[in-house]
Amino acid sequence: MRPSGRAPDEMRAITIETGFTKHAEGSCLISFGDTRVLCTASVEERIPPWLRGKGQGWVTGEYSMLPRATHTRGSREAAKGKQSGRTQEIQRLIGRSLRAVCDMEKLGERQITLDCDVIQADGGTRTASISGAWVALRMAVNKLMEAGAIKEDPLTAKIAAISCGIHQGTPVLDLDYVEDSNADADANFVLIEGGQIAEVQATAEGATYDEEGLLRLLRLAQMGCAEIFKAQDAATK
Amino acid sequence: MRPSGRAPDEMRAITIETGFTKHAEGSCLISFGDTRVLCTASVEERIPPWLRGKGQGWVTGEYSMLPRATHTRGSREAAKGKQSGRTQEIQRLIGRSLRAVCDMEKLGERQITLDCDVIQADGGTRTASISGAWVALRMAVNKLMEAGAIKEDPLTAKIAAISCGIHQGTPVLDLDYVEDSNADADANFVLIEGGQIAEVQATAEGATYDEEGLLRLLRLAQMGCAEIFKAQDAATK
Amino acid sequence: MRPSGRAPDEMRAITIETGFTKHAEGSCLISFGDTRVLCTASVEERIPPWLRGKGQGWVTGEYSMLPRATHTRGSREAAKGKQSGRTQEIQRLIGRSLRAVCDMEKLGERQITLDCDVIQADGGTRTASISGAWVALRMAVNKLMEAGAIKEDPLTAKIAAISCGIHQGTPVLDLDYVEDSNADADANFVLIEGGQIAEVQATAEGATYDEEGLLRLLRLAQMGCAEIFKAQDAATK
Amino acid sequence: MRPSGRAPDEMRAITIETGFTKHAEGSCLISFGDTRVLCTASVEERIPPWLRGKGQGWVTGEYSMLPRATHTRGSREAAKGKQSGRTQEIQRLIGRSLRAVCDMEKLGERQITLDCDVIQADGGTRTASISGAWVALRMAVNKLMEAGAIKEDPLTAKIAAISCGIHQGTPVLDLDYVEDSNADADANFVLIEGGQIAEVQATAEGATYDEEGLLRLLRLAQMGCAEIFKAQDAATK
Amino acid sequence: MRPSGRAPDEMRAITIETGFTKHAEGSCLISFGDTRVLCTASVEERIPPWLRGKGQGWVTGEYSMLPRATHTRGSREAAKGKQSGRTQEIQRLIGRSLRAVCDMEKLGERQITLDCDVIQADGGTRTASISGAWVALRMAVNKLMEAGAIKEDPLTAKIAAISCGIHQGTPVLDLDYVEDSNADADANFVLIEGGQIAEVQATAEGATYDEEGLLRLLRLAQMGCAEIFKAQDAATK
Amino acid sequence: MRPSGRAPDEMRAITIETGFTKHAEGSCLISFGDTRVLCTASVEERIPPWLRGKGQGWVTGEYSMLPRATHTRGSREAAKGKQSGRTQEIQRLIGRSLRAVCDMEKLGERQITLDCDVIQADGGTRTASISGAWVALRMAVNKLMEAGAIKEDPLTAKIAAISCGIHQGTPVLDLDYVEDSNADADANFVLIEGGQIAEVQATAEGATYDEEGLLRLLRLAQMGCAEIFKAQDAATK
Repeated sequence: MRPSGRAPDEMRAITIETGFTKHAEGSCLISFGDTRVLCTASVEERIPPWLRGKGQGWVTGEYSMLPRATHTRGSREAAKGKQSGRTQEIQRLIGRSLRAVCDMEKLGERQITLDCDVIQADGGTRTASISGAWVALRMAVNKLMEAGAIKEDPLTAKIAAISCGIHQGTPVLDLDYVEDSNADADANFVLIEGGQIAEVQATAEGATYDEEGLLRLLRLAQMGCAEIFKAQDAATK
Repeated sequence: MRPSGRAPDEMRAITIETGFTKHAEGSCLISFGDTRVLCTASVEERIPPWLRGKGQGWVTGEYSMLPRATHTRGSREAAKGKQSGRTQEIQRLIGRSLRAVCDMEKLGERQITLDCDVIQADGGTRTASISGAWVALRMAVNKLMEAGAIKEDPLTAKIAAISCGIHQGTPVLDLDYVEDSNADADANFVLIEGGQIAEVQATAEGATYDEEGLLRLLRLAQMGCAEIFKAQDAATK
Repeated sequence: MRPSGRAPDEMRAITIETGFTKHAEGSCLISFGDTRVLCTASVEERIPPWLRGKGQGWVTGEYSMLPRATHTRGSREAAKGKQSGRTQEIQRLIGRSLRAVCDMEKLGERQITLDCDVIQADGGTRTASISGAWVALRMAVNKLMEAGAIKEDPLTAKIAAISCGIHQGTPVLDLDYVEDSNADADANFVLIEGGQIAEVQATAEGATYDEEGLLRLLRLAQMGCAEIFKAQDAATK
Repeated sequence: MRPSGRAPDEMRAITIETGFTKHAEGSCLISFGDTRVLCTASVEERIPPWLRGKGQGWVTGEYSMLPRATHTRGSREAAKGKQSGRTQEIQRLIGRSLRAVCDMEKLGERQITLDCDVIQADGGTRTASISGAWVALRMAVNKLMEAGAIKEDPLTAKIAAISCGIHQGTPVLDLDYVEDSNADADANFVLIEGGQIAEVQATAEGATYDEEGLLRLLRLAQMGCAEIFKAQDAATK
Repeated sequence: MRPSGRAPDEMRAITIETGFTKHAEGSCLISFGDTRVLCTASVEERIPPWLRGKGQGWVTGEYSMLPRATHTRGSREAAKGKQSGRTQEIQRLIGRSLRAVCDMEKLGERQITLDCDVIQADGGTRTASISGAWVALRMAVNKLMEAGAIKEDPLTAKIAAISCGIHQGTPVLDLDYVEDSNADADANFVLIEGGQIAEVQATAEGATYDEEGLLRLLRLAQMGCAEIFKAQDAATK
Repeated sequence: MRPSGRAPDEMRAITIETGFTKHAEGSCLISFGDTRVLCTASVEERIPPWLRGKGQGWVTGEYSMLPRATHTRGSREAAKGKQSGRTQEIQRLIGRSLRAVCDMEKLGERQITLDCDVIQADGGTRTASISGAWVALRMAVNKLMEAGAIKEDPLTAKIAAISCGIHQGTPVLDLDYVEDSNADADANFVLIEGGQIAEVQATAEGATYDEEGLLRLLRLAQMGCAEIFKAQDAATK
C-alpha cells in the first residue's frame, strides 16, 4: 500500500492552467497533485553567440524552487550567489528534453527560454517542469505561427516526463515526496509521444535493480506519460 | 486622464488569496491589479548570531522577481550569481517595515522570514510585497499563538505600503507600469494603521517637488493604505 | 540636550578641502564634524551601452567605507567579494541625486563617476558624500567648460543632503554616530537649492512619526542644506 | 565501420596504473584508450555536518578536466570562479555510484573523497573516472583495514561504468571523442558486478530510441563492464 | 637625467602624518612624493582559527587603491567582486614584512591588521605601504603597552621598503610612475634596520641584470631605507 | 646534514618526459625528485584585447595543484570559486619569466598559454613549473616554426628556476617539502642561460639574511640552474 493510498500504477491528479501570467508568450501552472510549477516560455529574437549565422534557433530551460516551496525553507540561490548542482542538472535536462522535439531550422534564428519555477513541491518537480514547459512552448510557437514569423511547425511531437521508483519492493508510478524520500531506487523518464525515449535518469543509491526492473519502471512511465499527453492535448486545444 | 482611465486617487483592485501554498506557516497571493506577488512566512526556531541570548526574535524579508514576471524576460539573479542593488534595497525595506510593527521580545527567540516572489509585475511590486507580507506574518503569528508558542500578540498594528507619483503634473495614487515609466517623481510610503509613518522613499529623477507636493503624495498614500488595511482585515478574519 | 552639546537645529562644522587628489578632474575632502569623505569626479569619454547614440551623458556614483573608518574594523568588501546591500543602496542614491541637477544633453556623450570613499565615519556618511560629490562634479564640469568640451553649463542647481532624526523625542539636525545609534527615527533629505526636494528616505524602526513629524524633519533639513550650499559656494569660487 | 576500426562491441584498451601518486591513500591512472584520468582517494577523519553522530561515513567525488586535456584549450574553472553544470553533474554521479557499493556503517565516521582529474580526454571521461575511482577507493579501504581502523570490508561489490551510443544507426560500445561528437544517442551505464544496475543516464538530443534500443545499449554495457571488472581485479590484487 | 630631475640615488620627499584617522589604534598618512597611502593598524582580541591555543598573535595586511588614485579611473575591486592578483600579492607582502619584525609570542593572542589604502598613486605604492604600516603598527603596539596589555615590546626592529630599478641603463632609487612605466627592471626591497634583508622581489620583463646589477640595486635600497628609518623615527617619537 | 642526506649544493634528480599529453602543442611531465608537474603549451591564434593591432604576441601562465598533490587533501579552487593569492602569485611569475626570454614581435599575433598542473608536490612546485614550461614552450614554438607560421625563433634563451634557502643555518639548494617547512629563509631565483637574472623572490619570515647571504643563495641557484639547462637541452633535442 502506498502512503497516499494510490495503486502502484496510479498517477496523481494532473491539472494544467494555461495563461497563468500575461507577459510570457506561453505560460501554464501545472500540478501533479500538490506539486505545482509555473512554466513560462519567452521568445527572444537573438541566439547564443555560437549559433550565429547558422540559420537555426535554440531552446533552453531554467529551473528554480521558491525558498518555501518545500516543507522547511531552503535558502535562496540568488542570495547564496550560486545555483546548486541539482538545479543545474535539472535545467540542463529541461533544455535537452525540449530540444529533442523541436526542429531548430524551422524555429529560425530565435531563442525560446522555458522558465520552470516551483511554487510548491511534493515530489516530481523536474518531471512536472518538463511536461508543463512543453505546453508553454507549444503556446509560444503557436503565437509565432499565427503572427507569420514561423511558416512550418517546428515541434515534431509532444514530450512528457514522469518519475517511477521502487518503494518497499514495489515499482510505483509518480512518486510524491514521502515516497521519494524512502524510495530504494528512483528513475525519471522523458518520453516522446509515439513510444520513443528521450532521456532516462535512473539512480539507485540504496537498492539496485536489474534489467527486468528497469523495464518495469519504463512501462509504468509509458502509462504515466500517456495520461500527461492527454492533459497537454486538452490544455492546448 | 490616467492611461488606465482611473481617477487620480483611485487604487487598482486589491485581492488577497490566503493559503496559496501549503507548506508555509502563512502565505498569500496578493494582487494590486495585474501585479501579483506570492508572500510566504516561514518560522524558524533559530535567530541570527548577533541576537543570541537576548531573549528576542527577528523578522526579515527576501524579494525576487521571476524572470518572466516582466514585459521582457530579465535574467535570473541566481544564474548571474548576485542580487541587484534594487533587489537588496527592496528586501531591506520589507524587513524594516515589518519589524516596525512587531515586538521582538513578545515574538521570542525565533525568526520569521517573509519571502516575496513576484509572479507578475505591473508596477508597485514592492508595495504589494509589504502589504501581502503583513498578511502572511499575521497568519504565521496566529499559528504560533494557537499552538501556545507565543503568549502575547507581538504584532502591534497593521502595516501597508503604496506608491504615489506625479504623472503629467498630477499627483496620482498606485502607479501601474505605464505610469511608473513616465512619472516625474515617484514615492513609496509605508504607513501604520492609525496614522503613523514607517517609511518614506521619495525620489525625483526628472521633476522635483516641494514641501506641498510631498504632503499631497502622503495624503494620497493615506487614502490608499486605508483600502489595503480593509483588504488585510478581510483576508485574515 | 544632545550628546555633543549641540542645539537641536545645529549642524556640525562643515569643511570642504578641494583638490585633495591630483589625478581626478574634480576632488574634495568634505567633513561634517568627524565624518570625512573623499569625493572624486572622473570624466570618461564613453557612456553605458544602453545610452549610446542618444546624444546624452551619464552621471553615476560609487561609495565605500575604508575598513577602519569606523569604531571597530569592518571587513573589506573587495575581500568578501561583494558589496553590501547598504553600500549599493547608498551609491544608487548618490547617482540619482546628482542626476537630478544635471542636464544630460548638455553634458554630452560622456560619463562622470563620483567616487565617495569614507576616510572616517561619525554618522551622516551618505549625506556628506552627496554634498561633497556635487563639489567634485562642479569642478569637473568647470574643467570641461574651460576646455571647450561643453558649451552650456549642464548643472542646473546646487544639491545637498543632510540627515535628521528624532532623538529622545526631539527632532534634531545632522546626527552623529552616537545619536544615530540611538535615534528613534532617521531621515535623509536631498534638497535642491531653491526649495525643491530630490529625495526623502525616512525610516522608523523604533518609534514612528506622523505627518507633522515628517514636516518638522524636513524643515530642519532645509536649514541644514542652506548651510551646506554656502560651504559649496565658498569651496567652488 | 567505426572511425577507429573497432567492432561495435569492442572496447578500447584499458590500463590501470596503481600508486600513481604517493600521498593519496589510494590512487591510479586509468586509461580507456587515449582517455586518461588520475583518480585519488583521500581519507579524512571527519564527516559532513549533517552526518555527525550517526555512526556512519561518507564517500564523495570531485571531477575536473585539466585545461588542455582536450583538443582545444578550455578555460580553467578555478579562474572562471565556478564549476560548470557538466562538472557538477559528473561529480555528483561519481559520488552516488561509489556510495552504491559502500556500506556506510562499516566505513565508520570518516569521509573518503575520490578526486578524478582528467589528464587527457578522448571520450568517456566520466565512465573512466568511476571505474578508476573504485580502484582508488579499494586501495584506500584496504589500507584502513590493514591498519585495523576498519574491521569489516565496507565495499560490497565492484562497480564500473561505460558509455554506449547509437552511431550512424548502429549501437556501439565505449565511444571515443569522434564517435561521441556524432552520436545520435548517448548513454552512460554504471553497473555493479553481478548484474545489478546502479545508474542509467541516457540522452537523445538527435535521434531517439525505443525500449528495444535501450536494452541493446544495456547489453553492450554489460559486456564492457565485464572487461573493466577484470582490469580492476588485476589492478588491485 | 631622470624625468623628475632627481639624482640616481635621490629619494622623493617623505612625509608621515600620524593620527590621520581617530578610530584606528595607530594610523598615518605616508607620502613618497605624490604617492600617498593611508595606513591604519586595527587591534582585535581574536586570532585566526589555526593559531588558537598556541599563545601567540598574528599580524596581517590588506591593500587597496581608491579607484581614482591613478591617472585614469580603475574599476573598484568590491564592485568587480574580486581582488586582483596584484592586490593579493601586495597584501601578502605587507603581512610577511611586518611579521618579520614582530615577536608573535610577545604580542600575545591578538591580531593586528594593517590596512593600506592608496589615496594617490605615483609609483612605489607597495613600498610606501610597508613603510607606513610599520609606523601604524608601532603606534598600536605602544598603545597596548601603555595599557599594560603587552609587557615586553614585540617589535624587534624597524622595517622599511623601497623600489629601485634600471631606467635607461642607470640604476635609480625610488621610481615614480613615469620611470616605473619605462623601467627595464624593477626591484622592491624590504630591509630591516641594521642591515638585514626581509624580502627581495626583483623582476625583469624587459632587460635583465646580472649579480653585479642586483647588488647595485640593493645598495641603493639600503641608502633609501636609511632615510625612511629616520622619518619613521621622527614620526613615532 | 640535510633530511634527505643530500649535500648543501646537491639538486634532486631531474627528469623531463616530453609529449606526456597528445593534444597540447608542447607538453612535458617534469620531476624535481618527488615533485611532478605537468606543463602544457597551448597555441591560440588570438591575443588579449589590449594587444590587438600591435603586431605582437603574448605568453601567459596558469598554475594549479591537484587537490591531493599534497600530504593532506587541499580543497579544490574551482569548488571554492576562487584562486588563492598564492596561486595567482605563482601564475603571474610563470608568465613574466617566460616573457623574459620571448621576443613578442617574432612570435607574431598569437598567444601561448603555459598550464602548469602539479600532480605531486614535494617542495619547489613553482620552480619546476617554470623550468618545465620552458620545455613545453620550446616544443610549441618549434612546431610553429616547422609549420612556417613563425620565421625567426622568438625564444632568445633558456630560462630555469630553482629554490634555495637557509636550513638550520646552512644555505641549501633545491629544498624539498621537509626542508621548506623548516627553512629560516626561502628564495626562488629565475635565471637565464648566460648569467642574467630574470626574477628574485626572497622571503624571510623567520630569520633574515644580509647581502652576503643573498649572494650565497644566488650562487647556489646558478649551480642548480646549470643542471636544469642541461636537462632542458636533452629533453628538447
